[in-house]
Amino acid sequence: MDLQELKKSLESAGKSLPSTVDSLPAGFYNPLIVYGLSIDLVEPGRVLCSFKVPARLLNNGNFLHGGATASLVDIVGSAAIFAAGSPTSGASLEINISYLDAAYLDEEVEIEAKILRMGKTIAVVNVELRKKKTGKIIAQGRHTKYLAFSSKL
Amino acid sequence: MDLQELKKSLESAGKSLPSTVDSLPAGFYNPLIVYGLSIDLVEPGRVLCSFKVPARLLNNGNFLHGGATASLVDIVGSAAIFAAGSPTSGASLEINISYLDAAYLDEEVEIEAKILRMGKTIAVVNVELRKKKTGKIIAQGRHTKYLAFSSKL
Amino acid sequence: MDLQELKKSLESAGKSLPSTVDSLPAGFYNPLIVYGLSIDLVEPGRVLCSFKVPARLLNNGNFLHGGATASLVDIVGSAAIFAAGSPTSGASLEINISYLDAAYLDEEVEIEAKILRMGKTIAVVNVELRKKKTGKIIAQGRHTKYLAFSSKL
Amino acid sequence: MDLQELKKSLESAGKSLPSTVDSLPAGFYNPLIVYGLSIDLVEPGRVLCSFKVPARLLNNGNFLHGGATASLVDIVGSAAIFAAGSPTSGASLEINISYLDAAYLDEEVEIEAKILRMGKTIAVVNVELRKKKTGKIIAQGRHTKYLAFSSKL
Repeated sequence: MDLQELKKSLESAGKSLPSTVDSLPAGFYNPLIVYGLSIDLVEPGRVLCSFKVPARLLNNGNFLHGGATASLVDIVGSAAIFAAGSPTSGASLEINISYLDAAYLDEEVEIEAKILRMGKTIAVVNVELRKKKTGKIIAQGRHTKYLAFSSKL
Repeated sequence: MDLQELKKSLESAGKSLPSTVDSLPAGFYNPLIVYGLSIDLVEPGRVLCSFKVPARLLNNGNFLHGGATASLVDIVGSAAIFAAGSPTSGASLEINISYLDAAYLDEEVEIEAKILRMGKTIAVVNVELRKKKTGKIIAQGRHTKYLAFSSKL
Repeated sequence: MDLQELKKSLESAGKSLPSTVDSLPAGFYNPLIVYGLSIDLVEPGRVLCSFKVPARLLNNGNFLHGGATASLVDIVGSAAIFAAGSPTSGASLEINISYLDAAYLDEEVEIEAKILRMGKTIAVVNVELRKKKTGKIIAQGRHTKYLAFSSKL
Repeated sequence: MDLQELKKSLESAGKSLPSTVDSLPAGFYNPLIVYGLSIDLVEPGRVLCSFKVPARLLNNGNFLHGGATASLVDIVGSAAIFAAGSPTSGASLEINISYLDAAYLDEEVEIEAKILRMGKTIAVVNVELRKKKTGKIIAQGRHTKYLAFSSKL
């Protein structure tokens, strides 16, 4: 692909959507990610969720979008911080993710978030996405948060 | 928040959306992120974009969602790999992001993706989001990809 | 500290050593890190080690140096790749570490390295350092390697 | 290599050193890394250093040890925090490094550390190692620190 073509291809990607996208309400993103997520277990410092990979979160390779995976590491990691008794989930300092396997449409995925450190100002969570059938790890990430700003989940 | 309350709050987050969400088409996610993105420069191994923070990508704190930032690191980083002449953008191995500042509704943001390494099988890109007015860095991330699987941007 | 002072302080740090440091042999670094490490368990894809924090690896705050911790994530992570049957430990693509707690002189530390993904070309390992007495996590890291170059441990 | 052999090989690595290693003084590690480092420029929030890859820091593949690179990201990154006017370099929260190219014995390497964020409690630094001759990037890392604990460089 030459550079001019690449520019066009990038710009046209967004154009597949109707312009009503511009009027989507504030905070549309978060529920778009978690819609359909089932919370299977909440205990101090640990949250276990599951979901079936929905069509809307697929990438062009037809598996779970890496950005959606990162968003789940963000959101479910924050939930584990609440589950550790924090009145706030804080602000993200760092998120990192290793992508280990692809998750395809309708695959059952479980997400486990576990607190690694719960301090007064810093919390660190490990988040793992696994295939429910085989236990195979799809992605593992860590989320480091600064516990000073208030933010509802 | 007690654990039972947390479980309810997590599960209700998705319920703010109509169930039509379930019928959103495959590949809805990617354009949702890049809709409105302008490609300002494409040169070998480097891509420069800009956008105004849209309502739909805000988090509950009313600034750009960390998961959306991660998605932009993913997508614009992949574009730089194409811009370095790769016929494929490959599959993600690792994404990491440091969150440095908040970007609020309608702020002008520029994204710069630059190739750090362009090998035959491994590419690494640095991606930075900055406030256009002040140059202040909002987030810096790196994206490591394995260049073997084919995937359209 | 003003900038001139900082420059001096940085340059003098190395000068606390005799110039014989310059004649230390190739490969001095690796054994310096692992000297005293006991290998408690090796099984497919998993290695468990332990050691007592030695004086030589302390930082100026008198706890285990962050660079030494990173080196252990590198070395013990590579051992787990051998333990998964790889004929080579490969070349490092990415190492990341979250520092969670300090480890002081003579503390008993255990290190567990577990394979997350063992592909033909890419391996990813999770490495955790814990206090032996309490199980408290000192550091958690991930090590991603490219399995093509040959390298003895 | 079978598992028993691997255990032996790991344990014997440290044994190449004389037992006098056990009596090396506290804080031996830091100067071992920085001995020979020249500080070429210190300005607010930015430090530029250079060194010739010494034999003692080579790995078994005869290039700069990944753990030594991580240590340089730690140490030179901390120096940039001092250079930004902080009275303390703080405690490490997170270090991540992408390894991009090998640096061989006696190669001239330059290290540039630049502050990305300098808050009251959190500092983030980008650290890059480059080949002096060609400008080729050897490694890029980020170092996130919590600025509360006092620690001399």
